[in-house]
Amino acid sequence: MTGPPLDAAGPSPELLRARAFMSRVAEPGHWALWRFVEQYGPIDAVRAIVAGTVPDDVAAVTAARRDRTDPDADLDVAARHGIRLLVPESARWPTTAFAALQRAATAAGAARRVELMAMATPPLALWVKGSLDEALPVRSVAIVGSRSSTAYGDAVAAELAFGLARRGVVVISGGAFGIDAAAHRAALAAEGATVIVSAGGLDRPYPAAHANLFERVAHAGALISESPPGTAPQRHRFLSRNRLIAALAGGTVVVEAALRSGALNTAAHCVNQGRPLMVVPGPVTSGRSAGCHALLRREGYSALLVESVDDVIGVVGRISEVAVRTAVNTNTGSDMSRRGRLDSVDALARRVFDGLPARGSISVERLASRCGFDIREVIRALPVLEMAGLVERDESGVRIAVELG
Amino acid sequence: MTGPPLDAAGPSPELLRARAFMSRVAEPGHWALWRFVEQYGPIDAVRAIVAGTVPDDVAAVTAARRDRTDPDADLDVAARHGIRLLVPESARWPTTAFAALQRAATAAGAARRVELMAMATPPLALWVKGSLDEALPVRSVAIVGSRSSTAYGDAVAAELAFGLARRGVVVISGGAFGIDAAAHRAALAAEGATVIVSAGGLDRPYPAAHANLFERVAHAGALISESPPGTAPQRHRFLSRNRLIAALAGGTVVVEAALRSGALNTAAHCVNQGRPLMVVPGPVTSGRSAGCHALLRREGYSALLVESVDDVIGVVGRISEVAVRTAVNTNTGSDMSRRGRLDSVDALARRVFDGLPARGSISVERLASRCGFDIREVIRALPVLEMAGLVERDESGVRIAVELG
Repeated sequence: MTGPPLDAAGPSPELLRARAFMSRVAEPGHWALWRFVEQYGPIDAVRAIVAGTVPDDVAAVTAARRDRTDPDADLDVAARHGIRLLVPESARWPTTAFAALQRAATAAGAARRVELMAMATPPLALWVKGSLDEALPVRSVAIVGSRSSTAYGDAVAAELAFGLARRGVVVISGGAFGIDAAAHRAALAAEGATVIVSAGGLDRPYPAAHANLFERVAHAGALISESPPGTAPQRHRFLSRNRLIAALAGGTVVVEAALRSGALNTAAHCVNQGRPLMVVPGPVTSGRSAGCHALLRREGYSALLVESVDDVIGVVGRISEVAVRTAVNTNTGSDMSRRGRLDSVDALARRVFDGLPARGSISVERLASRCGFDIREVIRALPVLEMAGLVERDESGVRIAVELG
Repeated sequence: MTGPPLDAAGPSPELLRARAFMSRVAEPGHWALWRFVEQYGPIDAVRAIVAGTVPDDVAAVTAARRDRTDPDADLDVAARHGIRLLVPESARWPTTAFAALQRAATAAGAARRVELMAMATPPLALWVKGSLDEALPVRSVAIVGSRSSTAYGDAVAAELAFGLARRGVVVISGGAFGIDAAAHRAALAAEGATVIVSAGGLDRPYPAAHANLFERVAHAGALISESPPGTAPQRHRFLSRNRLIAALAGGTVVVEAALRSGALNTAAHCVNQGRPLMVVPGPVTSGRSAGCHALLRREGYSALLVESVDDVIGVVGRISEVAVRTAVNTNTGSDMSRRGRLDSVDALARRVFDGLPARGSISVERLASRCGFDIREVIRALPVLEMAGLVERDESGVRIAVELG
């Protein structure tokens, strides 16, 4: 079952060890640690953490485990389970997906909204198990919802996942009972690719009753976790895991969710990252759709009501295509001019870009008004422009991205 | 069963005969005829029509029946069935409700959109049967939907109608199978008032299987029709009937509707009249909710998703209260100053009013942006301002109402 090395001629063993150390030394989602690693590089960052020569905020989140971290052991255990470590230095790292996280975190930092920064901190490394050629699907949709779903929710999740998988879209979800499982099973039935983003170590499927499902998903797609082998899935890990589901997917569909469902947290991540949030309505007589309806009504969320595979493809298809083109452009010369990047986006996105003021931010509502577009069109166009590095979000709305260099 | 005369000291027999003539001589919804009657008064208008000395557009719609119209016979048949004629000259005429129609028709005329003018032509008279003290409910909600409803739709319609009736809100609908009947039956069960707006003469309940339901509704509320006794319900009469359902109600709730349901036509009237359109979502696996979801997604409709009685009261309650106050103000001195009328509306409506430009129209989206409100808040406030005569709609959006005199 052990697959080929993900990055045969990729990052050095030293780098992998340093990233494995980071994955173990702190819980996911600490912005100060992520910034520190970005600034000094993982190898020097490890040395500083071990030596205790780090800023207070980094020391605070690493002190407890810095002397109990054994990256070689973690990598060994991982290898025995067919789990590989994917690192940002790899060509296969989902740069585009996580750029949205980083932008959201930066914007939250500028607005001094600490809780949103944690929500949007990119991962330091990912543990991956599976045969998915492209571990970081560009054309993908997250399908999330209630663990205690109804027959209606299961049927809708299955229909969407089956149809999307048949059309080559990778389905992403957690590994829980209910909607998650219905989506994965249908994608597998369609012989498509599907990805479980797990809140715990990939050597211990959770829930245990899904061991076989995890096995099948690893075979047909991939299991992904931010936590090293042996990590127990705990509540806070589910919450930080949800940001990765939203980030890895071109858009998130909430199929069925009660008012306190964890799926609403994934929806919040999706919105925070500027990704399109799609929602399936349901009977108002079922509390299991009450969370969905709350999302559809929530101001500032601009959730899109979807009923079918075609609806979802209509929202995500275009974004994915542009993301692919942008990724290709980035690989062949990342300092492409703004003009060039504008040419790479569709006409709608170009017109929305033209509606932005030369300086400063404006609200999405005002931007829609300036463009003469319906606000929903603008919301669909923004992720395209963000992925192309043309616009940025901040606390007051959106603005033209600052050109670097 | 014959109730007391609706307007004991009201309009003269001559006026009633003239209006009864108008009700018979042409099909509902002819703007040219309505304008002609407004201009010359019904009595002189009848003389001119009979003499054939009318403009071509009025002649075109009255020529076929002008010599076969017997208002005395119609009024006699009506009286035998306990049906009375309510005319615009009566103090009980729903002036406020139909003012929105007239404004929409005027705006459509200015935009040369003939089809929208017909949609918004006020009625020339209404045939009424029932015990409802106030035949023209101010605090009312229309509940409409599919004739071939599901158990889900019936249950939701019944729950909404029951709860609204219990809280003193009059339920308005057609008299059809499905959602209409479920709503009326539940309102009756709650011992509330309910109104059937019929597409045919009130002496012939349609469908015939609902004869008993019509009887009970007349007893606990009212039957209303634009057509004189003996008129068969035909397709075009259902369409013009729908505008009255939307106009008489403070807001319209679409409970369950397929993509080609007649309820979508009522929804279009509701939006055309600037009234709040509420929509109940349902399972996406049922084609019977597909029309509802289409309404929720339709650009420019700004339909509000509702799940409960509280949701509906939240939308319509405030509007109704203001309408009552405005109606009282109109009765005690209709030339109330703009300042006085502004004081009569709630704080939200006042702030929306303050966002309007001194001259010219702006789109609702732009108005929302100027006020710093969510667009849905503005859409809720606009009917309040319209009913208070403070704002008008035209083809480019909304503007401060022109002061008369």
